[in-house]
Amino acid sequence: MITKEQTSQYLSENKQRFLDELFDLLRIPSVSADKNFRNDVLKAADFLKNKFEAAGAENIEVCETAGYPIVYADKIIDPSLPTVLVYGHYDVQPADPYELWDSDPFNPVIKDGKIIARGAADDKGQMYIHVKAFEMMMHNKEVPCNIKFMIEGEEEVGSENLEVFIKENTEKLNADVIVISDTSMIANEHPSMAVSLKGLSYLEVEVTGPNRDLHSGVYGGAVANPINVLCRMIASLQDENKKITVPGFYDKVVELTEAQRKEMNKAPFNLEDFKRDLKIDDVEGEASYNTLERQGIRPTLDVNGIWGGYIKEGAKTVLPSKAYAKISMRLVPDQNHKEITELFKKHFESIAPKSVKVKVTPHHGGMPAVTPTDSDAYHAAEKAFEAVWGKKPIPTHEGGSIPIVSLFKDVLGLDSILMGFGLNSDAIHSPNESFGVENYLKGIETVALFHQYFAEIKK
Amino acid sequence: MITKEQTSQYLSENKQRFLDELFDLLRIPSVSADKNFRNDVLKAADFLKNKFEAAGAENIEVCETAGYPIVYADKIIDPSLPTVLVYGHYDVQPADPYELWDSDPFNPVIKDGKIIARGAADDKGQMYIHVKAFEMMMHNKEVPCNIKFMIEGEEEVGSENLEVFIKENTEKLNADVIVISDTSMIANEHPSMAVSLKGLSYLEVEVTGPNRDLHSGVYGGAVANPINVLCRMIASLQDENKKITVPGFYDKVVELTEAQRKEMNKAPFNLEDFKRDLKIDDVEGEASYNTLERQGIRPTLDVNGIWGGYIKEGAKTVLPSKAYAKISMRLVPDQNHKEITELFKKHFESIAPKSVKVKVTPHHGGMPAVTPTDSDAYHAAEKAFEAVWGKKPIPTHEGGSIPIVSLFKDVLGLDSILMGFGLNSDAIHSPNESFGVENYLKGIETVALFHQYFAEIKK
Repeated sequence: MITKEQTSQYLSENKQRFLDELFDLLRIPSVSADKNFRNDVLKAADFLKNKFEAAGAENIEVCETAGYPIVYADKIIDPSLPTVLVYGHYDVQPADPYELWDSDPFNPVIKDGKIIARGAADDKGQMYIHVKAFEMMMHNKEVPCNIKFMIEGEEEVGSENLEVFIKENTEKLNADVIVISDTSMIANEHPSMAVSLKGLSYLEVEVTGPNRDLHSGVYGGAVANPINVLCRMIASLQDENKKITVPGFYDKVVELTEAQRKEMNKAPFNLEDFKRDLKIDDVEGEASYNTLERQGIRPTLDVNGIWGGYIKEGAKTVLPSKAYAKISMRLVPDQNHKEITELFKKHFESIAPKSVKVKVTPHHGGMPAVTPTDSDAYHAAEKAFEAVWGKKPIPTHEGGSIPIVSLFKDVLGLDSILMGFGLNSDAIHSPNESFGVENYLKGIETVALFHQYFAEIKK
Repeated sequence: MITKEQTSQYLSENKQRFLDELFDLLRIPSVSADKNFRNDVLKAADFLKNKFEAAGAENIEVCETAGYPIVYADKIIDPSLPTVLVYGHYDVQPADPYELWDSDPFNPVIKDGKIIARGAADDKGQMYIHVKAFEMMMHNKEVPCNIKFMIEGEEEVGSENLEVFIKENTEKLNADVIVISDTSMIANEHPSMAVSLKGLSYLEVEVTGPNRDLHSGVYGGAVANPINVLCRMIASLQDENKKITVPGFYDKVVELTEAQRKEMNKAPFNLEDFKRDLKIDDVEGEASYNTLERQGIRPTLDVNGIWGGYIKEGAKTVLPSKAYAKISMRLVPDQNHKEITELFKKHFESIAPKSVKVKVTPHHGGMPAVTPTDSDAYHAAEKAFEAVWGKKPIPTHEGGSIPIVSLFKDVLGLDSILMGFGLNSDAIHSPNESFGVENYLKGIETVALFHQYFAEIKK
């Protein structure tokens, strides 16, 4: 058994190297959504392979898929020990708009104790915690559980090729639990673990009016303007109570019990701080639910992008031929993303006036997921958090989605423990994404302790 | 007096040169809205100066303004003769989106008897008609009226510096009538003249939600999404009858009399052809008015551009900080564009929910205008059209705006005769803009005859 002293010592001896290696990984612009970064995505996979080799992992493989590769590695100590399967991703979100970053998104810096770079929290910093925890356990010759790693390169674009991979490798991926570090805690003083993730339905819509751009003086008011129509259609998707109006949308939503609602509302939350942080005068959302509930347990609809007509500098009086939008819905148990996508498509097509044509193209989606809090793995994680962070973690309901959590449950029969070390202020998906140095290092400690406690509980 | 034979002979002898010169002018990408084309705009002014010199005009001047220059030229035969002031513009609309053109917008070609190029109809082809008609009259030593030319380079961006110019040059610009060729006829078989132009109010709006882009999972449904809000606000600008809901918007609209409505509806119009041409299944507009009326005599509102969030390829689940739109309203007599702009701004700001901040920036605007059909100049033009095109022109109410027509009335006290030779199918402001060779040549004839008839009427 490793003592806290030994862990602390290894961490302080290797802190700089741990940061340097993470920085090296962060410098690789592995943007999966953009073909221009293809070589960089592959480079990041290769980087990981080398680090696994250096740490002493076995059966290391950069597994080809129809898209970006999945990096596999393991260390089997003894078949009788419990096995932990670590999932993460080495690809990152696009960094646009670059001009809003204070530093180069792919040249990490530390500012006020935070690492600033695209991917710092989502997911490189958090994923690499597990690689370094593994290295530490190997160095100390104390690896309490068997470990398997499955690190993919397409999480930000829908993990399209993951399902096939896990279906073809169920034997190889056999484990007792999956651990994922890709979520956030409430605060360093208020550790928490996500026990519920939202699902996702993402679509792109295109509204076509006339067959060509027109002069808005000659034709305006006589021919349907697809932008005006798109705005009307989008506005109609929510009623005055901000309830989504797609027929059947809420049918499968499992409402929380009063007790559950009361429990989740124990999470520390200050509405004034929340508004001040975002510089907004008011929040907005579904009537009868507060902000925490809207974020965590209610399905939502957002337009992620909209464009049409003349959008450069100056004025052009055009009545455009087309208008477009990217629309996504976050789902809660037990909504089914494929059903929701179909319901939305049907509804959107049906509300289009005869004066336009509408095309709806589904993008990737994912099911909502729940982590049971009465499992051995959850208890082990809870204990590890308490040991390192000083408090038992609060169970939280997340607004974000990790679609593959349901996939893992369905195909491998495994629950996922979401040991997230990020913070909301990390601003993932936004400019100036960050990850605390403290969170990185304490994350490594927490993960190592998790392995120890999990092995103990399972004895 | 010049005979039709002499005119025809001059035209056929010089047809190729007339086309070559117009093509040279069309090759200059004089896009006033885009600073990158600055030198080309100035080059077009210079081109005109040279052509006026070649034709024998006097007092030629490329008059400096705070923006692009105004080209002035004249030929005073005898102060006792009536004076015609010709207005036109040498700048053109942007050609975006370039990929939708079948040929280079700035390398004119002739296809099926039509010149295809940006500016072919709006306004170079039509403006140059007057330069060639002038050349022809000079060559024949038969210039029935004094002529003055005022050709500006900023019409497509709001003619910002025109007002100052005419206010500072009222003496120099003194005339009996203004002639403008920048509108369209119904068809070559159905000549027409616009007797009413719509006004224009153009604004840009910016809606700001949170102070930075956010993750739409973490914050969606809890924080107002400025795109969703913008869509709601835009949708609310028109009710279910497509009436504009800005309070006070219709207060100053002068309704046409039943007789006037009957008269304008005599213009040949086929709804099925109209829909087929645009490949739409249905038209759309203000209840209780038909398409011609919506186009000609009713005020309208169009979103000319909208953008916000992630609009590149693929999916990004962002809740953006900002959303934007360019919105314009076409106005009818006696709406005042400054008042309407103020009403819109006030209304738009008032309907914004507390969860966002809204910024409204007015662009250029213009008053609606009416040309009296009982004037000497109108009768002269009418007669010229009939002589060349075989029929008396139908008086039409245009959807487009030429803001300076009201300006000329207010500052110079002059009515404008809109002798337009374009066609709706010219697709001005759109890709593959065209102008008929026949329209160009017959336009030169018509203008020359107008000068003759106007001098005769005024004797």
